[in-house]
Amino acid sequence: MFRGAYQHILSLSEESLNGVDDSVVNETVDIIKSSNQIFIYGSGRSGLVGKFFAMRLVQLGFTSYFIGETITPIVTKDDSVILISNTGMTKSTLLVASVVKRIGAKIIAITSSEHSPLAKYADLVIHVANEHRDGSLAPLGTLFEISTVILLDSLVAELMVKTGQSEEDLRRRHAIWV
Amino acid sequence: MFRGAYQHILSLSEESLNGVDDSVVNETVDIIKSSNQIFIYGSGRSGLVGKFFAMRLVQLGFTSYFIGETITPIVTKDDSVILISNTGMTKSTLLVASVVKRIGAKIIAITSSEHSPLAKYADLVIHVANEHRDGSLAPLGTLFEISTVILLDSLVAELMVKTGQSEEDLRRRHAIWV
Amino acid sequence: MFRGAYQHILSLSEESLNGVDDSVVNETVDIIKSSNQIFIYGSGRSGLVGKFFAMRLVQLGFTSYFIGETITPIVTKDDSVILISNTGMTKSTLLVASVVKRIGAKIIAITSSEHSPLAKYADLVIHVANEHRDGSLAPLGTLFEISTVILLDSLVAELMVKTGQSEEDLRRRHAIWV
Amino acid sequence: MFRGAYQHILSLSEESLNGVDDSVVNETVDIIKSSNQIFIYGSGRSGLVGKFFAMRLVQLGFTSYFIGETITPIVTKDDSVILISNTGMTKSTLLVASVVKRIGAKIIAITSSEHSPLAKYADLVIHVANEHRDGSLAPLGTLFEISTVILLDSLVAELMVKTGQSEEDLRRRHAIWV
Repeated sequence: MFRGAYQHILSLSEESLNGVDDSVVNETVDIIKSSNQIFIYGSGRSGLVGKFFAMRLVQLGFTSYFIGETITPIVTKDDSVILISNTGMTKSTLLVASVVKRIGAKIIAITSSEHSPLAKYADLVIHVANEHRDGSLAPLGTLFEISTVILLDSLVAELMVKTGQSEEDLRRRHAIWV
Repeated sequence: MFRGAYQHILSLSEESLNGVDDSVVNETVDIIKSSNQIFIYGSGRSGLVGKFFAMRLVQLGFTSYFIGETITPIVTKDDSVILISNTGMTKSTLLVASVVKRIGAKIIAITSSEHSPLAKYADLVIHVANEHRDGSLAPLGTLFEISTVILLDSLVAELMVKTGQSEEDLRRRHAIWV
Repeated sequence: MFRGAYQHILSLSEESLNGVDDSVVNETVDIIKSSNQIFIYGSGRSGLVGKFFAMRLVQLGFTSYFIGETITPIVTKDDSVILISNTGMTKSTLLVASVVKRIGAKIIAITSSEHSPLAKYADLVIHVANEHRDGSLAPLGTLFEISTVILLDSLVAELMVKTGQSEEDLRRRHAIWV
Repeated sequence: MFRGAYQHILSLSEESLNGVDDSVVNETVDIIKSSNQIFIYGSGRSGLVGKFFAMRLVQLGFTSYFIGETITPIVTKDDSVILISNTGMTKSTLLVASVVKRIGAKIIAITSSEHSPLAKYADLVIHVANEHRDGSLAPLGTLFEISTVILLDSLVAELMVKTGQSEEDLRRRHAIWV
């Protein structure tokens, strides 16, 4: 099952990423570049996916926070908020969305469900499929989560170009210890 | 760069996963199944990789902890500890390795460096390559981290078979909220 | 202000703790001792207060989890859940309360507001005052938070007696590193 | 034991806080006010103590980070680092101290042991006693931890005065949800 699983995951992830429009990628980059601060939230494994990206945003020189961590400040209308939820129905994520909407910050939703409550809150929806998967090879949100990790790391490569930065620039901002 | 990045990551990840021996996969499954508790640790993005896996282990019915979280108990000699570090030289990870070695727990190291200090502590080394990558497409540990996420999720599929469980069994143990 | 602040906090904390009924203390101990697992949740500084206690519960030999951490399993009807919120109106805490209530687990609410929505969900309310404070010496939830930290550490002393354990027993279960 | 415990903790905490010199309080305030960023670290319950303070620093308008959290950037020589360890011998805390020392950031150590390895790294030591305690009423680091929570919240009151801020200013910067 081991080899079948990763081949399944890799091949469906590629399909899923091929399905993301260039215009959505460009708009995401524009929103990130024009935001004062970029907040990220997700629950469970989607939260981990978001933290992966938040770390790279900091290394790219952006001001980024994961909502719920100790020192996260308040969101303002000049910020953007990236919310990650496979089903688009995770309650704590919707709670964040509703608060942030009222403040007037830009919301980017990453979800497999384009008609979910989360998608309705969003200014921009990045659709990442969690379909056509075999539940014994990629149970629950596995496909969505891995595809989103790769999507966001590919956005990092895009942001490096758009901000004229190299791997060395990221390394200099890489916090070490603990 | 966006599409180039994910194609680069997917293709090198596949190569890297193809390089993992069947015997290493089987031994990892055996160690996990025969451990009383499975502890996981990594620093930074490697820590997030480990947390991804810890969540699934719990959903598979194993007793698993991420070292450093609030309620993590002490490690005993009947436990195993999975340590994740790209370079195999992360100081806090080596600190954990040295303590755990003295206790007599089994150590599984996941690293791109088979001759690293971390690998020397390990009873079993899972080598995940971070080489041949283009730093502008997959900066720093990106390739290692994504390959390891996929590796561990493929181990989940393997563990589902070896313990006779379906996606439904995982869903029942899936904690929701917050 | 420094000395004025801690004298203010210490004196109001004592008052607040004197106001906790013996019967409430005893009932809390009984619920904890008879629970299969003890879950804890709070948001922001109230969450930190809960984590303080969760660590000691583990050192006392109880099975305890903080909701929202990586490896927290699902709550069952044989468990108890301690929810901490100054106002009793924190949305994520109420979200947890509503889910947990449906499952049938016992809810202990620690709050300064006995008529709050959180208190309504609870099987047992521990009232910890946040009143009579000077906002320039103990701003926002400061008094509630510190009083609750001390309350819960005093419950630890009570639990040590009721389970026949010494400091040495706690030390043996004290996880070190990282 | 419940009432005996909190009276013991309150009375020894007061003694311990009375023992902190005014000059140490003033110097701490000066370092915090003149730092570009304030980093905080501690392991276990000492880490929770630090997070309590980090939240308030953010609400006071300072730029503060807890080392080890997702988005924590690198420390520079214009920053200060507050390290909390009862024994002054916690390995991960010493690891942070050694890295930070090399960078040239100011180190404030909060510890019960003035001659500990941690104290040696520090530019300023805040001594918080963990002595004269009864291990059955205040086991392990309990007294140190609670005294330090109160000490740091009293510093908050001091910082409010020194920066001309009211409770209302903190409330405005208080992040809600999740």
